[in-house]
Amino acid sequence: MAVVCSLVRHFPFRHRWSLPRLQIRCQRKALNVWTCGSSRSKLKKEGTGPLKREVLIMPSIRWTISHLPKRCLHATQLHLQEVMLTSERYGVQRLPFAHVSSTDVSFFENLMPGRVITDLDELKLFNVDWLKSVRGCSKILLKPRTTAEVSEILRYCHERNLAVNPQGGNTGLVGGSVPVFDEIILSTALMNQIISFDDVSGILVCQAGCILENLNQYLEQLDFIMPLDLGAKGSCHIGGNVATNAGGLRLLRYGSLRGTVLGLEVVLADGSLLNCLASLRKDNTGYDLKQLFIGSEGTLGVITAVSILCPRKPKAVNLAFLGCPSFSQVLKTFTLCKGMLGEILSAYEFMDNECMKLVEQHLKLTNPVSESPFYVLIETSGSNSAHDEEKLSHFLEHVMASGLVVEGTLASEDKKIKALWALRERITEALTCDGSVYKYDISLPVEKLYDLVTDMRTRLGGSAKNVVGYGHLGDGNLHLNITADSYSHSLLEAIEPFVYEWTSQYRGSISAEHGLGFKKKHYIHYSKPREAVLLMQQFKAMLDPKGILNPYKTLPVKGA
Amino acid sequence: MAVVCSLVRHFPFRHRWSLPRLQIRCQRKALNVWTCGSSRSKLKKEGTGPLKREVLIMPSIRWTISHLPKRCLHATQLHLQEVMLTSERYGVQRLPFAHVSSTDVSFFENLMPGRVITDLDELKLFNVDWLKSVRGCSKILLKPRTTAEVSEILRYCHERNLAVNPQGGNTGLVGGSVPVFDEIILSTALMNQIISFDDVSGILVCQAGCILENLNQYLEQLDFIMPLDLGAKGSCHIGGNVATNAGGLRLLRYGSLRGTVLGLEVVLADGSLLNCLASLRKDNTGYDLKQLFIGSEGTLGVITAVSILCPRKPKAVNLAFLGCPSFSQVLKTFTLCKGMLGEILSAYEFMDNECMKLVEQHLKLTNPVSESPFYVLIETSGSNSAHDEEKLSHFLEHVMASGLVVEGTLASEDKKIKALWALRERITEALTCDGSVYKYDISLPVEKLYDLVTDMRTRLGGSAKNVVGYGHLGDGNLHLNITADSYSHSLLEAIEPFVYEWTSQYRGSISAEHGLGFKKKHYIHYSKPREAVLLMQQFKAMLDPKGILNPYKTLPVKGA
Repeated sequence: MAVVCSLVRHFPFRHRWSLPRLQIRCQRKALNVWTCGSSRSKLKKEGTGPLKREVLIMPSIRWTISHLPKRCLHATQLHLQEVMLTSERYGVQRLPFAHVSSTDVSFFENLMPGRVITDLDELKLFNVDWLKSVRGCSKILLKPRTTAEVSEILRYCHERNLAVNPQGGNTGLVGGSVPVFDEIILSTALMNQIISFDDVSGILVCQAGCILENLNQYLEQLDFIMPLDLGAKGSCHIGGNVATNAGGLRLLRYGSLRGTVLGLEVVLADGSLLNCLASLRKDNTGYDLKQLFIGSEGTLGVITAVSILCPRKPKAVNLAFLGCPSFSQVLKTFTLCKGMLGEILSAYEFMDNECMKLVEQHLKLTNPVSESPFYVLIETSGSNSAHDEEKLSHFLEHVMASGLVVEGTLASEDKKIKALWALRERITEALTCDGSVYKYDISLPVEKLYDLVTDMRTRLGGSAKNVVGYGHLGDGNLHLNITADSYSHSLLEAIEPFVYEWTSQYRGSISAEHGLGFKKKHYIHYSKPREAVLLMQQFKAMLDPKGILNPYKTLPVKGA
Repeated sequence: MAVVCSLVRHFPFRHRWSLPRLQIRCQRKALNVWTCGSSRSKLKKEGTGPLKREVLIMPSIRWTISHLPKRCLHATQLHLQEVMLTSERYGVQRLPFAHVSSTDVSFFENLMPGRVITDLDELKLFNVDWLKSVRGCSKILLKPRTTAEVSEILRYCHERNLAVNPQGGNTGLVGGSVPVFDEIILSTALMNQIISFDDVSGILVCQAGCILENLNQYLEQLDFIMPLDLGAKGSCHIGGNVATNAGGLRLLRYGSLRGTVLGLEVVLADGSLLNCLASLRKDNTGYDLKQLFIGSEGTLGVITAVSILCPRKPKAVNLAFLGCPSFSQVLKTFTLCKGMLGEILSAYEFMDNECMKLVEQHLKLTNPVSESPFYVLIETSGSNSAHDEEKLSHFLEHVMASGLVVEGTLASEDKKIKALWALRERITEALTCDGSVYKYDISLPVEKLYDLVTDMRTRLGGSAKNVVGYGHLGDGNLHLNITADSYSHSLLEAIEPFVYEWTSQYRGSISAEHGLGFKKKHYIHYSKPREAVLLMQQFKAMLDPKGILNPYKTLPVKGA
């Protein structure tokens, strides 16, 4: 290693790519991929001299660059299969809310002419979740444009004891965004106005229905970005992101929404307005009420506007896609990466080879490196491209020379970065093409993260089609997914409660970022003590005494 | 400027300090200070060629390096003056809590032998705040070691209707940490154990009474740091930091405690335990209860343990102390700094010349640069010293050449960094030496920040001794302080409610980071709407129905 370093120092920085003893294999399907063996002797034997920087930084990757998919595939795919009603599949009892009458419809039509949907065909899309796993039977959808309209709607519903299901982009994965029965769907789709942006402080204030990707595009023109990014960005609403405390790909760098959301405007169950839409980085005047609504999944109030702190757009972004021979090497690479890339590290994602096979098979994406048991995606974002490239170069030399990484490819151009990200971001989509999906979103101490996948694979044997693991390793967040040709109750019983017990044993969270929604609410006890759940139920009872807001979600019924 | 840049590029980086046309004035009291005039012609005329890097990076600053003061000066200074009882000064009525009886004392002595203080002399220290502005008359102080003891204490007090004042390092500035009447003082001083530290994830779990500076020193050995830092670090407890949602000097870089605190263990008013001490970066299982306790100033529960995410210790830290000719130039320097230093910027503090005069006069610290209307302190923290120095160098060239900064000094050695930080951190101490202090901790849009100081100066004229402004400009946080030879009610009336009305007009916060405590609770309406205050009161009533926890603090009495 000392020899490598001393060689490296003598290259003039702007014109070198300092991996002097790594083998180039230009004959591979992705042209500009570098590889090395795992032993130093192999390195030495196969070394062919320094790799040119421009080759590696701008690899002409062969696979097709497709735009990131929007999570809004229902319209075209829904006819393919009818989704079973949630109430039937899970045997849920309807709570004694009032039924929507023609008088109610008239009231809403009078309040919002032309923005009340009662056509059953049109409503299908909003009654089913993106995964096509749960289905409600709401007969009415409302599209308010203003906070005052939301307030009027809730005041009326509260008085009439009508249940309400707030809905953003309907991209949730735990059945939190669609009705269970006939709840009124309150969509934020038309609440899509940017209220203000301050380019000194970087604080954006906007309505809840703004689509995340649109906000990011708006900010990019002003040299800023949103502090969060996720696969569903093309459809999800910022209000929904906040209501579910979305994590995503940038959390490692910019922290959680609990730190970046500076203010919220919320309409409470009885229609009263809570205006905590401050645009201040610091405000210690009393309890921070907005925190209660972040992550409450629409059960405590309807978020109508958001104030959020946005970071500057990084001047340089680089992406490395690496193949690792084992999970322990994925972990070692992570520790090294944190130390060597420091403040420019903006994402550290991993996926196993089973994930790669699925995106290759179902989405026709191409693996840019040789088949490996694991793949790691490292993103850097910084203010100086030369500095960032130098840091990344030193890091890559180190992981290649020490055999932690077998092969990798780099990208610094936007299109190529997107193409590499697609491999990771489109796994969810590939999984839905593989059959019926059992999804688990788990937080664990990083060193235990993958053990759950291997244990589950052993446990299920041939009864599952695929058992795959991927996720935000930098945040200790595993997405464990199991597929089967069709839904099977016995398979579900083999998975649950095993997966929750396993997680609880290591003091993990049974829902790292997806929330509890409808599907996970009964498992809250695996991650939260009884006293905490009781307190949550007290908060719910205090803020929504009639329980009209997103019923059947997040919390188990008191005493259950 | 183009000429400067092209010159710069031709210096070999490791051996240059690229401020080629800036004047060196070695004859000044602080030897290694560089200056420039505000016009380009002056720069050119006075230029003496490139400045050597080693001179600037390690200036041999003349002033004495003293250790940062601990906020625990009471013991030696208390005899100098008797502090007026809070109840008398503010005309507060005692609420109908029970009085501590000899039976109660026996119960506590039995529970915690040797850790119950009833000696009145010894208690003086804990009845008065650090500013010597409020005084209670508690006759008993308890020093539990364990969460179980805290639980026993609160269970007993709840049953007996005894009021309790939780106390950490007693470094608060709004009278939140000392009793108003005879509340039992529950000190976390002996709850000072580190429970665990994971050097992969950087997650520290510790008891609430650990002193912030001790935690930081512990972590530094392991190559990590605490995500917060403040002047009171030598005395303040992490539990108190969390209970008051302390901001401090690192917030700009590492975000607020709402993002970095991952878990809390809290004992509720009735003694029941709420264990939310998770060590996970992501956990979306139900409402985030811990957030309610962060910043609740001990009024909703007693924090007994904290789980917190700690960043890696930066490999390189640099500090620039700059003189600016006007506040608008302080702002322009900030905008430039965010763009050019990007991810390595870790603090951007400002102080006016009046602050500098006070630290010179009362603490005998020396101003390292020429007298300027404003001073700015910029800290960078990064993982590569060469990269950081290059970024800083480019930035300094730019601000000097454009006349935004008149003069400055740099430090990269720990001792010298501390000496420069002392100028900013010890302002609070210098102010207490100047007489009676009226303290305001305000959040405002940055462009309005200093107008409040000048408006106040004009308004008060000769009736105040000094009106000074300093603070965390990067966070939009102004510390406005007014001194007078002695406390004067008429001066207070000239300041308040003017200062709150002014702040409210610009939608600022009347307490950015200090909290409301006893002194500011009646002003909450200037920053929070009526509905929010009502909701806070409902939370208080739900969690502490008897109101025994830190009474007379944070919230105005319902209906007030």
